[in-house]
Amino acid sequence: MVPRYSRPAMTAIWAAENRFKIWWDIEVFAAEAMGEIGMIPADDAQKILAAREAIEPVDVPAIDAIEAVTKHDVIAFLTWAGEKLGPERRWLHQGMTSSDVLDTALNVQLAQAADILLADLDELLAVLERRAFEHKLTPTIGRSHGIHAEPVTFGLKLAQAHAEFARNRKRLAAAREEIATCAISGAVGTFANIDPRVEEHVAKRLGLTPEPTSTQVIPRDRHAMFFATLGVIASSIERLATEVRHLQRTEVLEAEEYFSPGQKGSSAMPHKRNPVLTENLTGLARLVRSAVVPALENVALWHERDISHSSVERFIGPDATITLDFALARLTGVMDKLLVYPERMQKNLDRMGGLVHSQRVLLALTQAGLSREDAYAKVQRNAMKVWESDGALSLLDLLKADPEVTAVLSPVKLEESFDLGYHFRQVDTIFQRVFGRSA
Amino acid sequence: MVPRYSRPAMTAIWAAENRFKIWWDIEVFAAEAMGEIGMIPADDAQKILAAREAIEPVDVPAIDAIEAVTKHDVIAFLTWAGEKLGPERRWLHQGMTSSDVLDTALNVQLAQAADILLADLDELLAVLERRAFEHKLTPTIGRSHGIHAEPVTFGLKLAQAHAEFARNRKRLAAAREEIATCAISGAVGTFANIDPRVEEHVAKRLGLTPEPTSTQVIPRDRHAMFFATLGVIASSIERLATEVRHLQRTEVLEAEEYFSPGQKGSSAMPHKRNPVLTENLTGLARLVRSAVVPALENVALWHERDISHSSVERFIGPDATITLDFALARLTGVMDKLLVYPERMQKNLDRMGGLVHSQRVLLALTQAGLSREDAYAKVQRNAMKVWESDGALSLLDLLKADPEVTAVLSPVKLEESFDLGYHFRQVDTIFQRVFGRSA
Amino acid sequence: MVPRYSRPAMTAIWAAENRFKIWWDIEVFAAEAMGEIGMIPADDAQKILAAREAIEPVDVPAIDAIEAVTKHDVIAFLTWAGEKLGPERRWLHQGMTSSDVLDTALNVQLAQAADILLADLDELLAVLERRAFEHKLTPTIGRSHGIHAEPVTFGLKLAQAHAEFARNRKRLAAAREEIATCAISGAVGTFANIDPRVEEHVAKRLGLTPEPTSTQVIPRDRHAMFFATLGVIASSIERLATEVRHLQRTEVLEAEEYFSPGQKGSSAMPHKRNPVLTENLTGLARLVRSAVVPALENVALWHERDISHSSVERFIGPDATITLDFALARLTGVMDKLLVYPERMQKNLDRMGGLVHSQRVLLALTQAGLSREDAYAKVQRNAMKVWESDGALSLLDLLKADPEVTAVLSPVKLEESFDLGYHFRQVDTIFQRVFGRSA
Amino acid sequence: MVPRYSRPAMTAIWAAENRFKIWWDIEVFAAEAMGEIGMIPADDAQKILAAREAIEPVDVPAIDAIEAVTKHDVIAFLTWAGEKLGPERRWLHQGMTSSDVLDTALNVQLAQAADILLADLDELLAVLERRAFEHKLTPTIGRSHGIHAEPVTFGLKLAQAHAEFARNRKRLAAAREEIATCAISGAVGTFANIDPRVEEHVAKRLGLTPEPTSTQVIPRDRHAMFFATLGVIASSIERLATEVRHLQRTEVLEAEEYFSPGQKGSSAMPHKRNPVLTENLTGLARLVRSAVVPALENVALWHERDISHSSVERFIGPDATITLDFALARLTGVMDKLLVYPERMQKNLDRMGGLVHSQRVLLALTQAGLSREDAYAKVQRNAMKVWESDGALSLLDLLKADPEVTAVLSPVKLEESFDLGYHFRQVDTIFQRVFGRSA
Repeated sequence: MVPRYSRPAMTAIWAAENRFKIWWDIEVFAAEAMGEIGMIPADDAQKILAAREAIEPVDVPAIDAIEAVTKHDVIAFLTWAGEKLGPERRWLHQGMTSSDVLDTALNVQLAQAADILLADLDELLAVLERRAFEHKLTPTIGRSHGIHAEPVTFGLKLAQAHAEFARNRKRLAAAREEIATCAISGAVGTFANIDPRVEEHVAKRLGLTPEPTSTQVIPRDRHAMFFATLGVIASSIERLATEVRHLQRTEVLEAEEYFSPGQKGSSAMPHKRNPVLTENLTGLARLVRSAVVPALENVALWHERDISHSSVERFIGPDATITLDFALARLTGVMDKLLVYPERMQKNLDRMGGLVHSQRVLLALTQAGLSREDAYAKVQRNAMKVWESDGALSLLDLLKADPEVTAVLSPVKLEESFDLGYHFRQVDTIFQRVFGRSA
Repeated sequence: MVPRYSRPAMTAIWAAENRFKIWWDIEVFAAEAMGEIGMIPADDAQKILAAREAIEPVDVPAIDAIEAVTKHDVIAFLTWAGEKLGPERRWLHQGMTSSDVLDTALNVQLAQAADILLADLDELLAVLERRAFEHKLTPTIGRSHGIHAEPVTFGLKLAQAHAEFARNRKRLAAAREEIATCAISGAVGTFANIDPRVEEHVAKRLGLTPEPTSTQVIPRDRHAMFFATLGVIASSIERLATEVRHLQRTEVLEAEEYFSPGQKGSSAMPHKRNPVLTENLTGLARLVRSAVVPALENVALWHERDISHSSVERFIGPDATITLDFALARLTGVMDKLLVYPERMQKNLDRMGGLVHSQRVLLALTQAGLSREDAYAKVQRNAMKVWESDGALSLLDLLKADPEVTAVLSPVKLEESFDLGYHFRQVDTIFQRVFGRSA
Repeated sequence: MVPRYSRPAMTAIWAAENRFKIWWDIEVFAAEAMGEIGMIPADDAQKILAAREAIEPVDVPAIDAIEAVTKHDVIAFLTWAGEKLGPERRWLHQGMTSSDVLDTALNVQLAQAADILLADLDELLAVLERRAFEHKLTPTIGRSHGIHAEPVTFGLKLAQAHAEFARNRKRLAAAREEIATCAISGAVGTFANIDPRVEEHVAKRLGLTPEPTSTQVIPRDRHAMFFATLGVIASSIERLATEVRHLQRTEVLEAEEYFSPGQKGSSAMPHKRNPVLTENLTGLARLVRSAVVPALENVALWHERDISHSSVERFIGPDATITLDFALARLTGVMDKLLVYPERMQKNLDRMGGLVHSQRVLLALTQAGLSREDAYAKVQRNAMKVWESDGALSLLDLLKADPEVTAVLSPVKLEESFDLGYHFRQVDTIFQRVFGRSA
Repeated sequence: MVPRYSRPAMTAIWAAENRFKIWWDIEVFAAEAMGEIGMIPADDAQKILAAREAIEPVDVPAIDAIEAVTKHDVIAFLTWAGEKLGPERRWLHQGMTSSDVLDTALNVQLAQAADILLADLDELLAVLERRAFEHKLTPTIGRSHGIHAEPVTFGLKLAQAHAEFARNRKRLAAAREEIATCAISGAVGTFANIDPRVEEHVAKRLGLTPEPTSTQVIPRDRHAMFFATLGVIASSIERLATEVRHLQRTEVLEAEEYFSPGQKGSSAMPHKRNPVLTENLTGLARLVRSAVVPALENVALWHERDISHSSVERFIGPDATITLDFALARLTGVMDKLLVYPERMQKNLDRMGGLVHSQRVLLALTQAGLSREDAYAKVQRNAMKVWESDGALSLLDLLKADPEVTAVLSPVKLEESFDLGYHFRQVDTIFQRVFGRSA
């Protein structure tokens, strides 16, 4: 975890305090279940349950000190926490194995992290929707291969981003569901010394699903899927960040990351407003993605478990979720305050002297009766002049002045072919599809 | 694609013939829709539709020859296919862009590939279920860290594999749904020259969902999710393959890949039956996983598209799906015919002279009234003798001969603590969870 | 291997014919050594050596047919090749193990592949050097964050690419040296049935180094390093390809991939010259990089070997080298014929009305006695006007018209601050460092 | 960075104090050079040089407080550090750009990290050498595919590990050389406002090489190569760790991670000594490797730089080096104190009743005149009996009792074929190759 790329709520999930609180919940709820099914005395179970809040504030240094002696984290915690109880403490952890606590707690943390990420995505989606409607009909040039193609609207770009992040939200919800499982099944997953009803009860209390079958641990294909999903979301962040970086290039300058009025650019160069936030997002995307391969490598544990996954998860659990949370929030901020320059968009759109309309003129000439080859030749010779003028000449003007063209298409018809509105007739349809509304 | 790791049905999906047939379907169904909504003459549309089968057999060399001139694959195909039609050929591809055909066709191929993989998973699941029930109560030692822990059954191991691949099936079904989209939206996704109803119709005909909003291309986060899912499945294959490799080790030998009676091992060493199929699966898993990162890197295309994704997909599209299909089928074969040695399992289980039961004896002593410390000391001193004998002594025998133990626990009670059945009481519960039935 | 991204010489390395020829060389040279040290009769060894060319042309189908029966590739080959010999054939492969042949042969193929790649790099370096000198003093804007910064020359950009690929050449030479080893050490690497002198002799004959110690196989950390190096080279390709893609953007257009006079752009849009080659290179870079992780995962083979690496290498061996060869050649072609537009570079450089010189004016004012704050304010107020004019105003003109500025700096001095030459004084130094010459 | 997987010396490299000290060195030495070449007054340069130690102790919170205002780390540091100087402070950073400091400092940190890692490797190599000689002739079974093959010595296994880590040492030395460069070349690498001699001087003072040509930044192919090399080393760690994990398996138990006499295994199960250190190393290897892909993705920065690499490096710079340092030290500890059980090795070797010698018997029979087929049949029928007895019968005994065998080979000759020494004749040769000495 790098502090500058973290936010408090997500960081708190990975703090020792939260981990211990979850451990305690698992132990307490397990005791509750054991009391109910008669594994331990009902009274003692109730005492343990009543002490659920008693461990707060968690004294992490004290627990660490015990662990330094016992060399075992769960035992250290239980020793410390047990002191909050009377003799009923002896029922704690009955028939359970450390991994029951550790793995279930990790999944609770991941589910908590997913909840924050889902909320992050909701905020991003709200911003994208607002700005998409704001620029629903703001004309801008569509580019394939970085080269001008045909007109689109800036709102369409944002609607596409919205659709992509809506897919990501759905994926993350599925990944959260996958990871939100509970296993309290003993040393090798046979429930040899613990009743499966304990697992079911704890799961219910913690809002988890009982793991249908675990070994000593919860199977790591679940975690692999979880981190793979984060990697996909990170890649979508990179895509939108890259779009902004392109738009802010000096020669394009159709949009800019927000720059406060008082903010000083690079010394005396007022144009030096760098898209540093989206560049940063590009790097953070690489980082989140880097968790995917080790998470996949973690799946093939030996037999009923080996512990190779653990060190990996100590890194990627916090790093991938904290970084993704930060990145989503940063992206939301960027899109929320993005400075959009419709005039520059129009200027760039016009830069090619109307060449972006040549396809449609071609179509109009064909529909007016010219053969495709003939129509092509007429458009092409005028288009070349415009191109060679570097945008100084206008294709429409040249066509209007070309008698072979005007013989077939009247100036009015020609002008119609240069109508941007033609390209935007289906914007409502697309917005309807993406947002369920077009206005 | 490496021929030795491929199977015909999946390979055929990626053959030029299949690609061209899908292209033709897209063009034909698009024409049908155009006819219906009046974009082109209804009669001509019907003629085109009637010629749907006319392109078979596809003459790939002829199309390649045309492409060598036109330098454009879709145009080359249309030129060749158009000859199967009369003058109505001029309506083909009206208002469409090459990517409409290419991207939709790729998704059809990926959906077809997913269907085969889903069927592969079904076969694997059926085999795992059959063998799990076959060995539902076959005792074997559970191992954590490669070290003997407590008893499990071999059927439980297989049930765990079943649960994991059932999750993978669900993930793949979701990934298939993600990828099964259709885009016919023109050069920059605005439907400038094509009616969205054409897209909807083609999607319906091909069993796809219309892409809510595309640019020139279908967004690549869908493909990233698809290949990431294949990577997770591959990792699960690695896990089960690794289990078999471990079980087949000379010192363990609890199971072996099938070895036909006549098959000759390494020259004169009859023990030299190598788990080469599962070792191979381990390698193939690495290969399938290697598609994940480039698929993630493909997401951030520039603006309305760049073509960097295309070369990547030409490799990973066939390679990842063909290899995974082969790997799943190979794994199914391995598990179907796996030679299982219950006697060796029992022998290994007994190898430690009953030490695997020490936990339970400890519990029994405590329940019989000894303090935990006291019980521990008594078990420990006997356990150490067994351990030092390298399994020659039996823990049960020693305990029966230890008067301080028998003073608390009768021989009958002691024997109960060594009952394997105790560990397997919940096997039915687990099978019920995994298979929906326990017998 | 995808045929469209392959070239014949590299592909031939991975063809069965070449593999079999290398196998034969290994067997023949091993026999030669055995004859020399008396392991086999000297006469027979000479007969085998004399038959070195006899296996050509290699009849691959015949060998495949034998393998279909024997299920063993090396035995199948030896059976077929042995027929070219008399009774001396029985000495072939004496005391050797299949992996001695397979692993040494793979390394020969990788070394051959490296030789082609080194030659590819040499061609690329030659082109970069030629074009760097051609544009040594062609002014262009340097950009950080995609935003105009200060002037550089186009030749400098190319010199930087040259320096990077010269590093890659050095890395590849080291990787080739790593991989060019020979192991003929028997079933577990102990030379139990083969004299180490055989290994030394074969190594010498094949231009390899004897592997100091092998197990059954050559250790895979060597291959991991090899493929990691290819991944670094691929990333450098991506960098230069990305530079070209940026330069070709419609709004920038400082350079373009070569476009033959007769070549037809997208229908009637003459500006639609897409940087498809460099986009393709970006994708190919992702693909080559994807070999790195599986190559790293291949290192940890079990004990004296497992065969999981083999399937991985059947893919990445050919794919990574063939693709990288193709990519290097394509990049060389792109850079060789790159259309460079110095006028557009100058135009873009001037686009900001001289703001790129503001830093230097600031310095000049400070050196002329103004405080830094004072100088900054004077430059800033004029710079803002230029910026707001979108390049219509000129900073030099405004400064010349600002009496508070001219009170300190004469127009001549001001003009000096706008001299591009100032920025290029060290170009010779840099060229000297990179090329060992500056002219 | 995860504290439990870190060691102080490496962690200190990445602490703010160290970074600031390096920044100061760069600034001070740059001033020194500027004084020498007359860019700034020589006296002032000497004053700055004289203050080299003056910044200690570095007041990180004070610098952070300034950065909170200036939003610029280098300026914040210079503001704070400048207070240690008189008016000569104004010469600090003259003509330099932030990246000159940041990038050079990062490379100093990476070189410092490499030095620690090289020392780590030296310690590991020393341990491996000592233990290899200790077990130079300790017989143990060699395994391919996890199946018994032919005898090796435990010392040979360690010699192979030594050879592999010696290669890694060489690779790391090369990677260190690559990364140990210095760039002080101004905003776009043209030395517009700084003399190249400053760069050369600072490089010399810091033990670096001047970067032949930089843009605003040092090219990232260097860093990619550095982290790729760490990934290879991590994979070698995984290989040796996996070997130990295999050897410690209950059924194998030829070696164990050190377990102190007083250390308590899992409650009452004395056999439960888990190879947790090497399992942990397996996970840490995955983590170090995960830095490779983002480092490769960092290479293709846009134009003269974008800042996407920076956030990635803030993670992987510390994480990969700290974790690798920890892992190497842990591996050294494991190998240093590894409990080796030669008796168990011999027992496992004998487990197959001498089948591991069947190859050599076969050879002896052939050399004694039997046809290969005949010899094979005789060995095979006896070998099968041994195999079916699960090691209870002895191949040597059976062969001695087989008159058709003894008719050709005397008991003495037969016994010679079962001599382990035969397999170890070349151990000296191999040790000579690996260690330059065989005793």
